[in-house]
Amino acid sequence: MRALLGDAWWTDPDERLTYSYDNSRRQALPDAVALPVDAAQVQALVRACRTARVPLVPRGRATNTTGAAVPVAGGVVVSMERMDRIVDIRPGDRCAVVQPGVLNGALQQALAGHGLFWPPDPTSAAFSTVGGNLACNAGGPRAVKYGASRDNVLAITAVTGAGELVTLGTATTKGSTGYDLQRMFVGSEGTLGLIVEATLRLVPAPRDRRALRAIYRDVSSAARAVARLMAQPVTPSMLEFMDAHAVGLARHVGGADLPDDAGALLMIEADGPAAHLEADLAALREAAAGEGLVSLDSADDESARARLWAARKALSPALRTLAPGKINEDVVVPVSRIPDLVDGVQDISAAARLPIVCFGHAGNGNLHVNLMYDPADADQSARAREAMGRVFTLALQLGGTLSGEHGIGLAKRDFMPRAMGAPTLELMRQLKATFDPDGIMNPGKLLPPP
Amino acid sequence: MRALLGDAWWTDPDERLTYSYDNSRRQALPDAVALPVDAAQVQALVRACRTARVPLVPRGRATNTTGAAVPVAGGVVVSMERMDRIVDIRPGDRCAVVQPGVLNGALQQALAGHGLFWPPDPTSAAFSTVGGNLACNAGGPRAVKYGASRDNVLAITAVTGAGELVTLGTATTKGSTGYDLQRMFVGSEGTLGLIVEATLRLVPAPRDRRALRAIYRDVSSAARAVARLMAQPVTPSMLEFMDAHAVGLARHVGGADLPDDAGALLMIEADGPAAHLEADLAALREAAAGEGLVSLDSADDESARARLWAARKALSPALRTLAPGKINEDVVVPVSRIPDLVDGVQDISAAARLPIVCFGHAGNGNLHVNLMYDPADADQSARAREAMGRVFTLALQLGGTLSGEHGIGLAKRDFMPRAMGAPTLELMRQLKATFDPDGIMNPGKLLPPP
Ligand SMILES: Cc1cc2nc3c(=O)[nH]c(=O)nc-3n(C[C@H](O)[C@H](O)[C@H](O)COP(=O)(O)OP(=O)(O)OC[C@H]3O[C@@H](n4cnc5c(N)ncnc54)[C@H](O)[C@@H]3O)c2cc1C
Ligand SMILES: Cc1cc2nc3c(=O)[nH]c(=O)nc-3n(C[C@H](O)[C@H](O)[C@H](O)COP(=O)(O)OP(=O)(O)OC[C@H]3O[C@@H](n4cnc5c(N)ncnc54)[C@H](O)[C@@H]3O)c2cc1C
Repeated sequence: MRALLGDAWWTDPDERLTYSYDNSRRQALPDAVALPVDAAQVQALVRACRTARVPLVPRGRATNTTGAAVPVAGGVVVSMERMDRIVDIRPGDRCAVVQPGVLNGALQQALAGHGLFWPPDPTSAAFSTVGGNLACNAGGPRAVKYGASRDNVLAITAVTGAGELVTLGTATTKGSTGYDLQRMFVGSEGTLGLIVEATLRLVPAPRDRRALRAIYRDVSSAARAVARLMAQPVTPSMLEFMDAHAVGLARHVGGADLPDDAGALLMIEADGPAAHLEADLAALREAAAGEGLVSLDSADDESARARLWAARKALSPALRTLAPGKINEDVVVPVSRIPDLVDGVQDISAAARLPIVCFGHAGNGNLHVNLMYDPADADQSARAREAMGRVFTLALQLGGTLSGEHGIGLAKRDFMPRAMGAPTLELMRQLKATFDPDGIMNPGKLLPPP
Repeated sequence: MRALLGDAWWTDPDERLTYSYDNSRRQALPDAVALPVDAAQVQALVRACRTARVPLVPRGRATNTTGAAVPVAGGVVVSMERMDRIVDIRPGDRCAVVQPGVLNGALQQALAGHGLFWPPDPTSAAFSTVGGNLACNAGGPRAVKYGASRDNVLAITAVTGAGELVTLGTATTKGSTGYDLQRMFVGSEGTLGLIVEATLRLVPAPRDRRALRAIYRDVSSAARAVARLMAQPVTPSMLEFMDAHAVGLARHVGGADLPDDAGALLMIEADGPAAHLEADLAALREAAAGEGLVSLDSADDESARARLWAARKALSPALRTLAPGKINEDVVVPVSRIPDLVDGVQDISAAARLPIVCFGHAGNGNLHVNLMYDPADADQSARAREAMGRVFTLALQLGGTLSGEHGIGLAKRDFMPRAMGAPTLELMRQLKATFDPDGIMNPGKLLPPP
């Protein structure tokens, strides 16, 4: 390996420790860390590991929340940090070719000069990689209008678990040439192979944006407004939701200026040419208005916009005051079922005697369900785990699924058999075996043990 | 079979003949025709055929152009014409649940009442099925703004070649729960299984639209305009191209009012709220203008719009005056390579001494390459086939692929090894075997014989 990778092969215990965990706070020591510089090194590494039956765990910047980058079966962590080049930006073709280790934020900066952007906008954009975003199918608030990672990829070059270097898809915005393998690679969490290059679909950057903040008496009024907003022609560029709990926290702890009778809040944004925004805002206002609306404020400039977003920004720090530990899951349901989800979650919270705060990407029905507890308290931890199981069951009953954008990893792996029928799960297992016949790619993630 | 399907099982020669061909004009007699009414019948049918190792060929309305619905290996043609119900339309969730046999046009009509539409708009919409559209990944002019079939599907229920009834995906606009199988089913041309239900992503119908017609001196001026149009923020809702040959035909044969020095033509449309269109048209005009522009006309109402589209409409009938036979392929290249494609195609045309006319969906780089010849003339036919092979090679060399929206079927199957590396093709074969272990689903289509 040292002959192959030179100084890009680390076995020192300190260095291995640095690469032993991710943002899930789970941890397991790898046997080695590889930092390849190109596809040829990745391929040689995979072939050697395949021969020796050694697990490989791809790693971007380890910001994922599900344990997807933790080497639970040991083996080699493959960090993509040295493959961080933007290979090509082609504005006329609306695409960019990048290595997997480029940071999302760095890419956006490079694209801004061309008046373009790549839609996925996870809050972690400044310190997560495009490869990691693709592997998790990451999204963010903009997905409601522009789609998540899977909707914004044209082609992927990867080394499969079999050690083959394959190009999937072409740098064209349309294609009907056989099975779509590139979109299947997106969201596969490093279990099929290592992405070594990606051709991304780009979108022209909107020139301007305007925000509205709508406060409702209760969640079901807000949810009905979400359905109205999504049924009219002006698709908001963001449509974020906060439940009563979240609003209360933002007010009492975060000091945000919010009325007392706020039972739910929507942050609504439109983007586009300045000439459109007047009419767009009018359409969004009209859809936001209705039974249960308490107040509707608009922000005409960026500083007013920042004031409106203050409540949302205050939330994450405020959450920490409730309990030292947090389980943040990102279930998704059809938009019309948001009220059932939020009500059901409050019942689960009451039964578990633990606070649960819901907020997130309402336009996609993708809510972050934050369960607060004390990890040092064994009884609370058990109740928290059980409550989260019930949240997943509820989301599935409502026609939704386990994850909208964070993925499965270790955290939700054991719930997969509840999320799909046995034959579908079996198809996924066979598919994994097709790309990775010896099961060396990120073992233990995404699929439950047979 | 008769016990299982009753009067939905036909073996009469006349009836079999009716189901023996598709729009490719290829033909092969099936042994029987089945017209199931529900998923249970489909599943029973597949299981029986699997036991007996009898091929199954799914069929919508047989409008595909690649031979994808022709039962070349005999067996049972499964027509979806009796499974044509719209099961549910849910405006707030922006989705509709449909059976596969519903006609695209019938669905659009039902959706219009809700102010929604399903983006795929093949010219065959009035007489092709949603199941067939999905199985081919059909598109149309609107795909440049709204995507093709694959971009507009949330979930698929199918009976696999193994006889399993599976649901792939969920009725949510976001999801990161394991491998994306539903999008992989789109474009699989009936080779993995039979789609028995689909949950489609819907888009709010734009209130209004406006058209521009831009005429250029030559193809490369027009292509540079396409790149400019795609690099600015107002994405056109259609961006159609005609080469000099097509313009000449539309003028001389179709009687369209077009200047003599027209070397290429673009039809550009914007849609949206009426309040936007003024600014959008201004942006599109600005991008369309530049070196080589001969004239730029706009249509302010629907009748002016129809006049502008006359040239495009005149084209298909005019083509028939050139030669009795036509091979219409729909290669796709990156937008910036359109001039190279059109120039290269003219060289191929000259070498083959056969006219080739190019037009199509420029915003996606998806051109219809129409080669005109006399099928009764053996020499012309041989030259035509050879020329088409060279067109495919050219598209691949330019970083494009074999098909943008028509699919592979029988027609382009043997070119698949040129379009992708051997390991990628092998992945596709294994994937097919996962869904269809006995190879009974539409054998001979999409993948070349090993
Ligand atoms: C503060 C914070 C905010 C966040 N906000 C959001 C949000 O708004 N939306 C959202 O969707 N997510 C969010 N996330 C989670 C999100 O999944 C990650 O931030 C990001 O997508 C992971 O990128 P990464 O480079 O850190 O990948 P890692 O965490 O290193 O890896 C993630 C997965 O991808 C695999 N992987 C990485 N690189 C490759 C490769 N080249 N080839 C194959 N597999 C690879 C890994 O094996 C692992 O399975 C957030 C996380 C944090 C910490
Ligand atoms: C005049 C004309 C214009 C056209 N214009 C366009 C255009 O603008 N854009 C475009 O993309 N295409 C166009 N096409 C071709 C297009 O592919 C088809 O019109 C349409 O998508 C096929 O639908 P169908 O119901 O006729 O399917 P069929 O032709 O019957 O079948 C097509 C394929 O789908 C499979 N299939 C059908 N139903 C199912 C099912 N339920 N489950 C699994 N597999 C199934 C079949 O086995 C076959 O492989 C055009 C065709 C014509 C004749």
